[in-house]
Amino acid sequence: MEILITGGAGFLGQQLIRALLDRGALEMDGVQHPISRIVCFDQVEGVLVEPRVANVAGSIADPATVSSLVGRDTRAVIHLAAVVSGTAEADFDLGMRVNLDGTRHLLDACRAAGTRPRVLFSSSIAVFGGDLPAVVTDATTPTPQGSYGVQKLIGELLVQDFNRKGFIDGRSVRVPTVVVRPGAPNGAASGFASGIIREPLAGVEAILPVEPDTEMWLASPRAVVRMFLHALALPESAWGWHRSLNLPGLVASMRDEIAALGKLGGQAAVELIREQPDEQVRRLVRSWAARFDTSRARAMGFTADADVESIVRAYIEDNPGAVRVGATRH
Amino acid sequence: MEILITGGAGFLGQQLIRALLDRGALEMDGVQHPISRIVCFDQVEGVLVEPRVANVAGSIADPATVSSLVGRDTRAVIHLAAVVSGTAEADFDLGMRVNLDGTRHLLDACRAAGTRPRVLFSSSIAVFGGDLPAVVTDATTPTPQGSYGVQKLIGELLVQDFNRKGFIDGRSVRVPTVVVRPGAPNGAASGFASGIIREPLAGVEAILPVEPDTEMWLASPRAVVRMFLHALALPESAWGWHRSLNLPGLVASMRDEIAALGKLGGQAAVELIREQPDEQVRRLVRSWAARFDTSRARAMGFTADADVESIVRAYIEDNPGAVRVGATRH
Repeated sequence: MEILITGGAGFLGQQLIRALLDRGALEMDGVQHPISRIVCFDQVEGVLVEPRVANVAGSIADPATVSSLVGRDTRAVIHLAAVVSGTAEADFDLGMRVNLDGTRHLLDACRAAGTRPRVLFSSSIAVFGGDLPAVVTDATTPTPQGSYGVQKLIGELLVQDFNRKGFIDGRSVRVPTVVVRPGAPNGAASGFASGIIREPLAGVEAILPVEPDTEMWLASPRAVVRMFLHALALPESAWGWHRSLNLPGLVASMRDEIAALGKLGGQAAVELIREQPDEQVRRLVRSWAARFDTSRARAMGFTADADVESIVRAYIEDNPGAVRVGATRH
Repeated sequence: MEILITGGAGFLGQQLIRALLDRGALEMDGVQHPISRIVCFDQVEGVLVEPRVANVAGSIADPATVSSLVGRDTRAVIHLAAVVSGTAEADFDLGMRVNLDGTRHLLDACRAAGTRPRVLFSSSIAVFGGDLPAVVTDATTPTPQGSYGVQKLIGELLVQDFNRKGFIDGRSVRVPTVVVRPGAPNGAASGFASGIIREPLAGVEAILPVEPDTEMWLASPRAVVRMFLHALALPESAWGWHRSLNLPGLVASMRDEIAALGKLGGQAAVELIREQPDEQVRRLVRSWAARFDTSRARAMGFTADADVESIVRAYIEDNPGAVRVGATRH
């Protein structure tokens, strides 16, 4: 079988492709389907070069390009391509083009294939915001406060309707804030939650723009990849009518993150964090949901990380080249 | 000032234009703005010919056409153009093109004008459906069950975000089922609720495809036009952050409608209604919300019709040529 991954050259996409290659098969409905080819589509070519991986660079905003990506052998599509929150807010047109039009083009291409491919859409907890209940559930009304959340929510609605119409077998998962993102900082407004682990471990100063008590809803890249594969593996009967799901995560404050950093990276790493309040970021992060009741997802078999320390440890294990400080002592 | 009305050639649009011409001004923020020109845009030319009305025919799915409609003098836009529920379900592509792309093009054109026009989007209670609470409020999560509702909800999200970004002064109102629609039956799945009044009054047989006890959330064209103008008149401070609103209506069963028909149109009219259950329509209508708590809208000054009888009476008064049976006795 063939799998298409949009945004596949990003860190989550690359980690997902590595996991798929390791397994050699994609599980769907209890059956292991051997993978013949993974199309990694992104605006740049993926760095992972392997016979089973076809790296394709292009724009998801171009319908003809997207149409050429989905063929009759494309059994599963994992749609990660997106302009992140901060960038979508700063460049409205780019966000609309990639996050909204791109998703539309992809769904149209899946429909045109005529084979009802299984489509996993990577949505976000950014669909929630503003005046929220203390605990967000799958029944909470999404009220996105930024363009990124609006575009993700529209994507979910399209996935839901394309699924209902029988054009695709669609599933949308709302991903928690992913910590620790490897690599250089990106335009995500939540970037500091990764930065205060990643940069100090590399011996570089990091800025904390919010109060240390600020809580967020977190998941590690490992957990997200595992949950993506689980979301594709589940039979349709497990999903039922509603195809959007809040993924399990864990609540942690920035103080919790710093404590885990201290434990695994040492006090020298902690001292590289500098508090520098940014009222705009503070306000935005305060509008996000931090506590979720994900009992529906848990009943479906999705599981979160054990604790913040294991999130930091996973980062250190997965990115040995990016860790310079302290961590080797553990 | 200039006003643009999309879908202006439809019955609501024409009634709205007549109301605007009668008033001669559009109220906004307590100020009466004399109307210099009303652009009536639709796929066909409006039948109302008047010096202040510019009838323009074209496709709302064409961005260049839509772009040409919004100029620097366009102070208010009323967006009614839509493919109705039954048609959007039967012709998915047409619904997407008109209801989604058309709304997008219009919002893009308003943004490009650079004058932040006041935009009223005619949304629908079809954004609700399925497993609903006994009483729907503005806080109820929209879970549209058909493509029409999905497309209307996406339109609301775009209006909300274009408003938040300062591109427009946007307001979306979720219109109840409009009864009695004049003219020929259209592709709306709710069409029978008008048909069982309109056809018998014209001496023509009408089909009732649902149980007589079926309740719906109704508003007359007069009430809807009045509420549209009120939605535009209100200052931004009255709307606040959330720009979507459930409009007041009244709960009535088809039995209530038939009783009002009997009272105003006579028993001969009632006898023209034939019960002919249609399981597909029944199922769809059962998935709709019939009872709403619209206290937010009422606090903002929106008001519904007094009762079903006054809805039928308004239809008779407004459409004397379409009434042949009984009604003249009253």
